[in-house]
Amino acid sequence: MDKEQYLSVYRHSLAHILAKAVIELYGKTVQYAIGPQIADGLYYDFLLPASVTQEDFPKIEEKMREIIKRREAWVRKEVSRDEALALFQGQKYKTELIEELPADEVITIYWTGDDFVDLCRGPHVENSQELMSAAFEIHALSGAYWRGNEHNDMLQRIYVWAFPNRDELKAHKALIQEALERDHKKLGPQLDLFMMDSTAPGMPYWLPRGWKMYNALLSFWRNIHEQHGYQEISGPVLSKKELWVTSGHWDHYMDGMFILPGETLDSPETMALKPMNCPNAIKVFMNKGRSYRDLPFRINQVDVIHRKEKSGELNGLFRVQEFHQDDAHILVTEEQIADEIKDIMSIATEIYNTFGLTYAAELSTRPDDYMGDIEVWNRAEEDLKNILLEVYGEGNFEINEGDGAFYGPKIDLKMKDALGREWQMGTIQLDFQLPLNFDMKYAASDGTQKRPVMIHRAILGSFERFIGIAIEHFKGAFPFWMNPYQVAVVPIRVENNGYAAQVAEKLIRAGIRVEADYADKNMNEKIKAYKKYKDPYILVLGNKEAETGTVSVTVRGVKEQLHGVPVDAFLAMCEKMNREHSLELLTKAE
Amino acid sequence: MDKEQYLSVYRHSLAHILAKAVIELYGKTVQYAIGPQIADGLYYDFLLPASVTQEDFPKIEEKMREIIKRREAWVRKEVSRDEALALFQGQKYKTELIEELPADEVITIYWTGDDFVDLCRGPHVENSQELMSAAFEIHALSGAYWRGNEHNDMLQRIYVWAFPNRDELKAHKALIQEALERDHKKLGPQLDLFMMDSTAPGMPYWLPRGWKMYNALLSFWRNIHEQHGYQEISGPVLSKKELWVTSGHWDHYMDGMFILPGETLDSPETMALKPMNCPNAIKVFMNKGRSYRDLPFRINQVDVIHRKEKSGELNGLFRVQEFHQDDAHILVTEEQIADEIKDIMSIATEIYNTFGLTYAAELSTRPDDYMGDIEVWNRAEEDLKNILLEVYGEGNFEINEGDGAFYGPKIDLKMKDALGREWQMGTIQLDFQLPLNFDMKYAASDGTQKRPVMIHRAILGSFERFIGIAIEHFKGAFPFWMNPYQVAVVPIRVENNGYAAQVAEKLIRAGIRVEADYADKNMNEKIKAYKKYKDPYILVLGNKEAETGTVSVTVRGVKEQLHGVPVDAFLAMCEKMNREHSLELLTKAE
Repeated sequence: MDKEQYLSVYRHSLAHILAKAVIELYGKTVQYAIGPQIADGLYYDFLLPASVTQEDFPKIEEKMREIIKRREAWVRKEVSRDEALALFQGQKYKTELIEELPADEVITIYWTGDDFVDLCRGPHVENSQELMSAAFEIHALSGAYWRGNEHNDMLQRIYVWAFPNRDELKAHKALIQEALERDHKKLGPQLDLFMMDSTAPGMPYWLPRGWKMYNALLSFWRNIHEQHGYQEISGPVLSKKELWVTSGHWDHYMDGMFILPGETLDSPETMALKPMNCPNAIKVFMNKGRSYRDLPFRINQVDVIHRKEKSGELNGLFRVQEFHQDDAHILVTEEQIADEIKDIMSIATEIYNTFGLTYAAELSTRPDDYMGDIEVWNRAEEDLKNILLEVYGEGNFEINEGDGAFYGPKIDLKMKDALGREWQMGTIQLDFQLPLNFDMKYAASDGTQKRPVMIHRAILGSFERFIGIAIEHFKGAFPFWMNPYQVAVVPIRVENNGYAAQVAEKLIRAGIRVEADYADKNMNEKIKAYKKYKDPYILVLGNKEAETGTVSVTVRGVKEQLHGVPVDAFLAMCEKMNREHSLELLTKAE
Repeated sequence: MDKEQYLSVYRHSLAHILAKAVIELYGKTVQYAIGPQIADGLYYDFLLPASVTQEDFPKIEEKMREIIKRREAWVRKEVSRDEALALFQGQKYKTELIEELPADEVITIYWTGDDFVDLCRGPHVENSQELMSAAFEIHALSGAYWRGNEHNDMLQRIYVWAFPNRDELKAHKALIQEALERDHKKLGPQLDLFMMDSTAPGMPYWLPRGWKMYNALLSFWRNIHEQHGYQEISGPVLSKKELWVTSGHWDHYMDGMFILPGETLDSPETMALKPMNCPNAIKVFMNKGRSYRDLPFRINQVDVIHRKEKSGELNGLFRVQEFHQDDAHILVTEEQIADEIKDIMSIATEIYNTFGLTYAAELSTRPDDYMGDIEVWNRAEEDLKNILLEVYGEGNFEINEGDGAFYGPKIDLKMKDALGREWQMGTIQLDFQLPLNFDMKYAASDGTQKRPVMIHRAILGSFERFIGIAIEHFKGAFPFWMNPYQVAVVPIRVENNGYAAQVAEKLIRAGIRVEADYADKNMNEKIKAYKKYKDPYILVLGNKEAETGTVSVTVRGVKEQLHGVPVDAFLAMCEKMNREHSLELLTKAE
């Protein structure tokens, strides 16, 4: 049994123990519904005569341990549907589940001891004794509708962390704690990066510090794209229905769009906020007659886009309704696909490496309902596979056969953060359909009119979501080049304001983002405020420094790691970090 | 008689001559409606038995001259309503106008000769002979509904330029021609700055070159604001009705807003695209408890905003439905108003001077339906007057008494372009109302909670409209710092590509916007393309230059004004122009 199977058996068995414990504590009227395994343990849903609260957790855990110690046997039985219905008489959820099975179905049940039975495919432990070394902890409660349907009963869900031993549970709890401390929904407002307001759900307000970081990131992203021959445009946020009908969004994406109806939804005056930028890039391409000399035609774009989400699914910067994709659309000839994808992969590598993020790729190939020429599909998929082979090597990337969109194959880029959590970020999507919908053409070198292939791609996904990930990945202590302010200036006393302003001015002229506090108040108060903001460097400037031209520096809250460095040397350090997009802070002048 | 009165008499009289000429040419069935004076002449609306076309202009002009030469007398008469109705029998528009007058109204009519009569208040010339030196020219035709109502008859409107003498007409025609050549709707697409698409009326697409210029302008604007202590934010484009109800936009600006209704317009789920940024700044201010130490609280913001316009009123970048204001909102104490306005005026001066635009100011004061404390109004108006006195001197600014908004007085800044045309650009609006609507407060130094005053202000108006003005003002030859690309690089032959790329790279590293063409084609073709774009400098680089490290430069299309300057000296020139935002191109290395 491999570890995954082992965990499954073990967590499923603990779920039965949990249900048995709850019934022993709360009585025979308890209705037990379902109790599946989840990533870090299990949960079970109950309808209880009295609400469970956090205070009850130790009591339930104790009862579970008591049951485990009883060394009760686990007995598997196969019964008919009618036998099952008899066994679970009075248990409405189990009854409902059984009634949905075919009349001749053989149903597997498990007895734990002689007084608790549950529907289960198994396998399970053979005796509760096997769970003696189990490390588990009830850690949360929530309300959950029976079968996720809001018209059904509201049940109480009890969550349990469950691991094979104490050390693994401890490690998991530490990770949870760390994730909690890194939560961007907590850190973001603490660092004055963004705020949310109930009048604009899922539509973040960027506060001055967050907007500075956003723009530092945008500028980094722009430079890379300029170097790779991209040209940036900006297109309308709002467009007439006609455009979305042509693009296919009207038929395939209507539920995700914010729509402004004309007289009726069908009126030509009906407009919609753009959920994607692709039609803008297409219109710009079609603004002039294009020839093969214009290809690859690389357009990048960072306009605000809107996508409707269910309010329950909104989640800080991770799931929003208004955001900016780091978008690009490239029109290529079929022959250019391979080279262009390779170039995109190299942009992705450059960007992810800057943040110290490793990434993996998945290729999704032709589905059954594909459109277009199978030869073109085959060649394109072959190209994509070869590139992935070249970049990652055999066996180091996944292929999801048949999982591509009907209009083209795609590569997804998934990245791991500092806590080892995986994020789907980049997508490179080939598209044979949109150029057809818009009847896009270019003059080929042989003088004929040909149809280009479109590539949609994003590397960060969206600026909003990426900043959310970056907050958690860096725990708010961003790399120098990205931090809202890079250097904070604190004069020791107001008499030192003149010199401090002089140093600040010198840094600002060199393009360093500087904030300074010249107010007549205690210097330690100022330092404390800047430490709270995790400013990389805090320069404390006095008279002595004025004489010798050196500065006293607190590096990310650690006092005087860099004491008495000359201003010019400090400036050179800052410029070097900006230039190189260093992940680490320099603490020594060269 | 001053010149304005003279022009009025003269143009009104010519209108009668035009109507008389048209009747003589097209017969008695002509229905003549109204013929007012306009800024550069006059027009007259007719219902004609046959359509007038451009080919008829000389014929009509000739007839007008013939009538003038007849030296017919102009006779003023006062008649009763009934007499007037009899006189204009068969003229449906005149009859309609007369019938709307009170029965006892004394009506003034003018006879020109004894066969043409028109309703008119006068005064007029006494004899058509006085118009002998008149310089006029029929220049345009348009359709116009009677009384501007689309349910009425469609009339033919004939436009006439009319000036007291040939020289003035000639100067006016030259100006019209110049304006035509500068038309941003023509130049913008020619220079590949922006495009429009019928699926997004009044919502410009920024093409790569235009977007580069937009961002150069934005960056210039940001730097100035940062220096003046502003902090930039970005807020949601979409917000719930609730926000717009509180701000008052729902009641006072609904027709201008793009609305996304919920179940009904009254549902709390109804949302609207923001027509203004003010509520965002307010939410950010209210995000924390604020004290007098936080004031003045200066927020700038350049988000996309939407305002509905009638489709007939859309006009290139001048009148759009989607745009970015160069917006700012400042929260101040009453005592800070004067200093803050002074600071805003200095920002405005700095910005306008950079473009070589002169500006004038107008103060609009308390209307009858003002809200708030009259003492506060008086002090604020006194402050604004004193600042205008200080900046412009007595008599050099206008005061529009009673023309202010009910929520505060304002200063409008109007600017003159290269053709002497006036544009309303900047507005500085005090607002005592919004802080009340949102119940905004700050802790005063005495510990009490006080209400701040809000200042709304824009200097450019909007980036879109300003770029439209700039295109016309500069005729597409923008200052170096603002031009989409600042330097174009053309290698003489492909063998010179290496050195050319080296020079380009050096310039790019110094922050210069460079475009280069390394294709294997004739160098003159490349130069021609860059000239068309009005790139300030075109560097033509060959082997010889590689050896000596000098460049051969075409300055804004003029060949070799700057031949053989060393690369480093050229780079220094570019940097100097960027730093100083020079209006003129340097043509000599220092």
